[in-house]
Amino acid sequence: MPGTVTSYTVEDLRFPTSLDEAGSDAMNKDGDYSAAYCTLRTDDGQVGYGLTFTIGRGNDIVCSAVEQVASRLVGWKTEELFTAAGMGRMWHYLLADSQLRWIGPEKGVIHIATAAVVNAAWDMYARHEKKPLWQLVADFTPEEFVAATTFRYITDAITPEEALELLKSKEAGKKERVAKLKVEGYPAYTTSVGWFGYPDEKVAKLTREAIAQGFNHFKASSQAMKVGADVATDQRRLALIRSIIDDPKECAGRPVPSAGSLVGKQAGPTGSVLMIDSNQVWDVQEAVDYVKQLKDARPWFIEEPTAPDDILGHASIRKQLKPYGIGVATGEHGHNRMLFKQMLAAESLDVLQIDSCRLAGVNEILAVLLMAAKKGIPVCPHAGGVGLTNYVVHLSIIDYLCVSGTKERNVLEYVSHLHEHFEHPPTINPHGFYNVPLDPNEGYSIGMHDESKATYVYPHGKYWSGAGADKVKANGDGNKLA
Amino acid sequence: MPGTVTSYTVEDLRFPTSLDEAGSDAMNKDGDYSAAYCTLRTDDGQVGYGLTFTIGRGNDIVCSAVEQVASRLVGWKTEELFTAAGMGRMWHYLLADSQLRWIGPEKGVIHIATAAVVNAAWDMYARHEKKPLWQLVADFTPEEFVAATTFRYITDAITPEEALELLKSKEAGKKERVAKLKVEGYPAYTTSVGWFGYPDEKVAKLTREAIAQGFNHFKASSQAMKVGADVATDQRRLALIRSIIDDPKECAGRPVPSAGSLVGKQAGPTGSVLMIDSNQVWDVQEAVDYVKQLKDARPWFIEEPTAPDDILGHASIRKQLKPYGIGVATGEHGHNRMLFKQMLAAESLDVLQIDSCRLAGVNEILAVLLMAAKKGIPVCPHAGGVGLTNYVVHLSIIDYLCVSGTKERNVLEYVSHLHEHFEHPPTINPHGFYNVPLDPNEGYSIGMHDESKATYVYPHGKYWSGAGADKVKANGDGNKLA
Repeated sequence: MPGTVTSYTVEDLRFPTSLDEAGSDAMNKDGDYSAAYCTLRTDDGQVGYGLTFTIGRGNDIVCSAVEQVASRLVGWKTEELFTAAGMGRMWHYLLADSQLRWIGPEKGVIHIATAAVVNAAWDMYARHEKKPLWQLVADFTPEEFVAATTFRYITDAITPEEALELLKSKEAGKKERVAKLKVEGYPAYTTSVGWFGYPDEKVAKLTREAIAQGFNHFKASSQAMKVGADVATDQRRLALIRSIIDDPKECAGRPVPSAGSLVGKQAGPTGSVLMIDSNQVWDVQEAVDYVKQLKDARPWFIEEPTAPDDILGHASIRKQLKPYGIGVATGEHGHNRMLFKQMLAAESLDVLQIDSCRLAGVNEILAVLLMAAKKGIPVCPHAGGVGLTNYVVHLSIIDYLCVSGTKERNVLEYVSHLHEHFEHPPTINPHGFYNVPLDPNEGYSIGMHDESKATYVYPHGKYWSGAGADKVKANGDGNKLA
Repeated sequence: MPGTVTSYTVEDLRFPTSLDEAGSDAMNKDGDYSAAYCTLRTDDGQVGYGLTFTIGRGNDIVCSAVEQVASRLVGWKTEELFTAAGMGRMWHYLLADSQLRWIGPEKGVIHIATAAVVNAAWDMYARHEKKPLWQLVADFTPEEFVAATTFRYITDAITPEEALELLKSKEAGKKERVAKLKVEGYPAYTTSVGWFGYPDEKVAKLTREAIAQGFNHFKASSQAMKVGADVATDQRRLALIRSIIDDPKECAGRPVPSAGSLVGKQAGPTGSVLMIDSNQVWDVQEAVDYVKQLKDARPWFIEEPTAPDDILGHASIRKQLKPYGIGVATGEHGHNRMLFKQMLAAESLDVLQIDSCRLAGVNEILAVLLMAAKKGIPVCPHAGGVGLTNYVVHLSIIDYLCVSGTKERNVLEYVSHLHEHFEHPPTINPHGFYNVPLDPNEGYSIGMHDESKATYVYPHGKYWSGAGADKVKANGDGNKLA
C-alpha cells in the first residue's frame, strides 16, 4: 500500500541572535534569526522537513500560514508526489488556492510559508530516493527537470522548450562536473566578518580568521561587510578590511585566485575581493551618491542598494556605478520569479542572489536559475540566516551541474553561526569551499536536532521560558519612537 | 489630559459571497469577501475603524498581523497623532519594525495588515476633527499634505519639493471643485453586471438594470465584465453586453457622455464604454493574443492581463494592444508605491487602479496619487470587495480636489453588494455618480453595524455556527486536484 501524507507539524523556532548582533545590518539591527519549521509525515513512516527563515517577530504569523498551506498536502499519495512531474503538479496546486493567493499574491508571508512546505516535500522525496537533494535533481532528465519547474508568467523570458534545449546542452560534462565538485567543493564567501554592530577590532580579528579559514582563494571570494551608518565610518571600516586582505604578509600562504576572474580588476594585489551590502537603506540617487564615495575600497558589487522591488531603480544605479567599476547585486528579498525575470530583462544586476525560501521553494528556484543562465548572469544565493547555508549549497550545485554549467563566476555566501542545531550542517573544506553533501539520508539537509527545537521553540521552549529571554525582550523592537 | 491609544480589537469577518458567485472571476472563482477589521480605542473614548480586504481563507493570518501592527500604536498620544505630520511619523514608525518588515518587506500580509491599522488611525483622526476623511485631507495645506505622505524609495520619481509645487498649483479652484463635486458627485462605473459565474440571462438583466441606475452618462463609464474562460464565450458575452449598451432604444433617456472623452472612440453610438478584466490569468504573450480577439467589443482597457508584479510585461502588452485601440489597467494587486513608480516610468498603464488597503493606507495612497498626477495618468481605484467602495470615494475625491484636479478621465469602480453592513454606506445619485460623504461623524466611512459583526465573525459568529456555513464549506477550496 502506497504512503499518504497524513499529518504535519509547524514549530515557531527563534534564536536570540540580537544579543550578539550577529546578522545585524543597517536595516535590521536586532534580528532574532527564526524559522517557521514544517514537518510532513506519511502513514508509512516517511518524513520531510522544511523551514522558512524570518528574523523574529512575525514568525508566528508565518507559522499560521505554513499550517494552512501544509494542510492542503494531507491526503496526497507519495506515489503521486515522488516524481519530477508530481513535484511540479504539487507546486501549482499549492499556489492555486485562490483565497490564500489573494493575500500575496505570490509574495510575502503566504509565499515564504509555501516555501517551507514545498521544501519539506522535496526533502521527503529526496530522503525516499536515498539521495541528497542536489543529486535527486541532478539525476533528472532534462524533461523531468522542466516538469518540476514552474513557467507560469515567465514564458516571455524562457519557454519550457528553450529550457529543455539549455538543459540538454549541459548534459555533456555533467559527470565530470560531479567528480570535480566532489574534489574541489563549491566556492564560498564569508559574510561573518563585518556585521553592522561589530567594533573595528572584531572586524579585523574576524577578517584575519577568515583568511586563516581559506576564504581567499576563490575567484569571486571576498569579505563582505555592511554599510549604511555613515560614509566616513564605512570608508574607515572598508579601508581596515582592505589593509588586511590586500597585505601579502597577512595573506601569506593563500593562493592567488586564478587568472581570468570576472572581478580581477577589483581584487587587488592578493586577489582578495570585497563586496558591500547596504540592506535597502537608500533611495536610488542616494545609493549612487553614497557608493561612489566607497570606490577606493574597490567593491565587486553593492548589494541591496535600495528597495528590493525596484527593478528600474537597480538598473539606474548599476548604470551610474559602472564607470566606477562597482556592480550591483540583489535578490535576498526578491519576492518571486517575475521580479527576477524583469531584473534580468532590465539589466539591473551583475549578480543574482536568490533566497531559498523567499522564493516558494525548489520549483521556483529552478525557474530563476534557468532565466539567469539564459542571460549569463551568475547566481550567488543568499545564506545569511538560520538554515539557509544548508539549503543553498544544494541549489548552487544544481546550478553548476545542470543549468549554468559553471562556477567560475559564482560564489556562495557562507555564515558560520547556528550550524550546531542541524543534523547535517554544511561544512567548509580547508580551502574555504563548501563540501558537497553526500549522506543519502540528509535530503535537503534541513533536519534539526530535537534538543534544539525543544530549547528554542517560541514562546514556551526552554530558552524562551528562562532568564535569557528577558535580555532579548529588553532589546525591544529596535524602533522606539524618539 | 490628552487621549492615549490604549487598546485595539481585531475581528475576522467573512461574508459567504461564494454562494452566489458575486465577485467571481477567472482567477477567483469562489471568494468569500472578508475583512480583517481593526478598532482602535483611546482612554478618552475616541474610536477609529479600519479594515483590510481579503477573499476568505487566510483572513485569520492577516488578523494576527493586524494585531501585531496595532499593538505598536498603544501608548501613542492623540495629540501626537492628530496632525498631518503626526500621521506621517506614525506611518514610518509602523513600517519600521525591522523584524515585521522582514516578512514583507512592504508587501503581502504584513502590508495589507498595516493598511487596516493606518486607516483606523486616519478614521479616528477624521472623527476627532468632525470631518469626513476626504475633507480632513482636502483642508490640509500643501505643506501638511506633503508631511502626511511617504516619499521613501520614490524620490527618483517625485521629491517632496516637486509634490509641494504640484499641490500648490492645485490650490486655485479647489473651493469651486468642492462645490461642483457636492452637486454632481464623483463619476462611477459598475462592476456588478458581469462576474465570471453569471449566466448570460443574468448578465443581460444586470446590464439593463445598470442602465436604469444611470450607469451610462459618465465620460469613462462602462460595464466591466470578466474574461478568461474561453475566447468564444467572452466574445459572445461581450457582444451581448454591447448589443444592449449600444442600442439607442435600450439607452433611451440616457444622456450621451460629453464630447472630448478620452474613451470616445471606444464608447460607441450611445456613449457606452466597456472595460474587460482578466484577473491575471495570462502570460504576457497569451494576453496579447487573446485580447486582440476581443477588439470588436471595443474595450477601453484590459484589466490585470498578467501577473500584477510584471511592470515590463504590462508595458509590452500595452504597446502591442495599442494598434487595436485597447488600453491596459492594473493596480488592485499593486503591492506598494515602488511598483507604481516603475509602472509609471515604464509606461505600463493607461489607467492606474490603486487599492485602498493593498497599499498601506492613506499615506502611501497619497504618494501614488502624486506620482500619477505628475505623469498625467488617471487613477481609478479598485472597489470590488467589502468596504472598498466606502474607502475609495474619499480617495478619488482627494485626488480630484488636491492632486490631479480633474475627474474628466477618472471613473470610480462601484459594486452594489454588502453595503447593508456599514453605518455609512456609499450611495449613488440618480445619474449614477457617487454622492459625496458629508456626515461629520463618518470619518473614513468604514464603521460597521454591531449586528453584522456578530453575525459574520469567523468561525463563531451566528452565520458561521449555523447551517449556512455548511453550504460554503461544501464549496471546498475551488482547487481540488483533478
